[in-house]
Amino acid sequence: MSEYRQDLITGQWVIMASGRAVRPDTFVPKRKTGQAGKAHRENCPFCYGNEDQTLPEVSAWRNGGGPDTPGWQVRVVPNKFPAVEPGAGLDTWCRDGIYPGMNGYGVHEVIIETPVHNRHPGSLPVPHMETVLTSYLHRFRELSPNENIKYVQVFRNHLKEAGASIEHPHSQLVGLPFIPPQVQREIDGSRRHYLDRKSCPYCFMLKEELRIDKRVIYESDFFVALMPYASRMPFETWIMPKKHCSSFEKISSGEGLDLAVALTAVLNRFAVSLYDPPYNLYLHTAPLRSEDLPAYHWHVEIVPRLNVMAGFEMGSGVHINVTVPEEAAGFMKI
Amino acid sequence: MSEYRQDLITGQWVIMASGRAVRPDTFVPKRKTGQAGKAHRENCPFCYGNEDQTLPEVSAWRNGGGPDTPGWQVRVVPNKFPAVEPGAGLDTWCRDGIYPGMNGYGVHEVIIETPVHNRHPGSLPVPHMETVLTSYLHRFRELSPNENIKYVQVFRNHLKEAGASIEHPHSQLVGLPFIPPQVQREIDGSRRHYLDRKSCPYCFMLKEELRIDKRVIYESDFFVALMPYASRMPFETWIMPKKHCSSFEKISSGEGLDLAVALTAVLNRFAVSLYDPPYNLYLHTAPLRSEDLPAYHWHVEIVPRLNVMAGFEMGSGVHINVTVPEEAAGFMKI
Repeated sequence: MSEYRQDLITGQWVIMASGRAVRPDTFVPKRKTGQAGKAHRENCPFCYGNEDQTLPEVSAWRNGGGPDTPGWQVRVVPNKFPAVEPGAGLDTWCRDGIYPGMNGYGVHEVIIETPVHNRHPGSLPVPHMETVLTSYLHRFRELSPNENIKYVQVFRNHLKEAGASIEHPHSQLVGLPFIPPQVQREIDGSRRHYLDRKSCPYCFMLKEELRIDKRVIYESDFFVALMPYASRMPFETWIMPKKHCSSFEKISSGEGLDLAVALTAVLNRFAVSLYDPPYNLYLHTAPLRSEDLPAYHWHVEIVPRLNVMAGFEMGSGVHINVTVPEEAAGFMKI
Repeated sequence: MSEYRQDLITGQWVIMASGRAVRPDTFVPKRKTGQAGKAHRENCPFCYGNEDQTLPEVSAWRNGGGPDTPGWQVRVVPNKFPAVEPGAGLDTWCRDGIYPGMNGYGVHEVIIETPVHNRHPGSLPVPHMETVLTSYLHRFRELSPNENIKYVQVFRNHLKEAGASIEHPHSQLVGLPFIPPQVQREIDGSRRHYLDRKSCPYCFMLKEELRIDKRVIYESDFFVALMPYASRMPFETWIMPKKHCSSFEKISSGEGLDLAVALTAVLNRFAVSLYDPPYNLYLHTAPLRSEDLPAYHWHVEIVPRLNVMAGFEMGSGVHINVTVPEEAAGFMKI
């Protein structure tokens, strides 16, 4: 018998369609993990020696070498095909006839996470993953004085089916001149919950989830990974700091290391147990330059792409999920 | 230079990323149209002679034969793997701990659109397409007395990449005990617009689009097909009645025939010019049993799946579209 579940914060409805259920261990496609292929590709713009095929680097973390030469571990470059651009000028509400619009002002960068072309992010050494997180942090801090950028969206597309156009491991960030609606919905929902219950709903959820221990798959000193009650997709996983904090930028170095361990553990578990599924990963955090918001709680969302968002989802905005998170979490517990 | 565009009604933001632009005629994958394959398959539950492989039919439009035997043109059956079920009981807000939830009450039906397994919906004879629309109408009218069903979501998934699990042409309907959020957003946005301007925003948009004629691809006596200003996906197309009406169920028989012509023309044009792309189609209409809403306007949305919704879209709720609708419409004008 299926059931409707509603996300505590956004109010998002999900149908848990256990009538169509597929057990976690039969759900997974039998494919090879991502370690196949070459460590270096002559024609990959993100491999060592091809630094001139990207735009000049914005930042890099290196063992040696100078800008735009090999020797880097993590390298940040502007996206060569940007969705938004800093040169666009910021004409708010330049309308087209009856329609509201704006110039495509913003920042679009690529974080090349490793020089090794076939390195799966779940198999990055922890200190290297920590450097990737440091590079995110650095970009947040560098972009922070730019008052025209209201929000920095960090995301990662793993494999073609999840929208990756380049195979070499990388994440991206887009700096936007407005708070994106998905984040605004979370902030608004959190605030409503806070007004009702005088607590951050994410803290409330964490406490409950750790108590009932049905959907938690990983716990460390500073972080918890869990599959949310109203998971939109099979194996959807959130990684959340235990301590209340609304902004990723406020992370301490001890927490950063702990997050690197958590992220590596979860991504590696996905790669092994679900045979390297395509997934999207993104960071949800308070708008840039926010004071600490008592109702909001930054976190990472990882959404494996094991099924297709189809007409029902697009038309209604309601997701159908065939794998209940309790079952998925039992299978994935680390 | 890219630009942000905002949907007039929902406020949905889209980035028109012309910097990454792909011209319509190079965008399309070179694949065969859907007419290949066999007209009848022994093992397809939706083909003639296999009526016993579905649940007993709810309704059928036939040239001959009795229930659950061949002779039908269009056949409606309960979904064998339903996302929601009428037997679920309607316990509103049965909570699980701190989380809101409900039993999976609802109706989930399949409309088998033709007995011909390899018939592309764009090549259905117009009177047959009219029968498909009649079957939708019939289901709306039959479900209408059920006060527990607040909304009927009709949708169609074309090809595997768009979520179709069975190849045989079919659409589906899900009757829900609440108004789905995507429809609610449209209704709320329409109402806001109505309060500001004393007009239905869809009527307002139609007038403007017909005047500027940059995004209209088809016009008949009763319908217009256009690519919306803030298209989320390349070649997204809406078919709208010219005359204001909030409920699909109120369609007259003359309008029904005209819609069958419009739908066939648009779907056929997609199949031919975009080499049979996967797409989702869905109906947006007022909630069941609504009085006519002066602000809302029923319509059909067709969303080809020519790119992947990736981490940025999922994380931010903002779409990136690489093909501006003016250009797509120029290419697709019928």
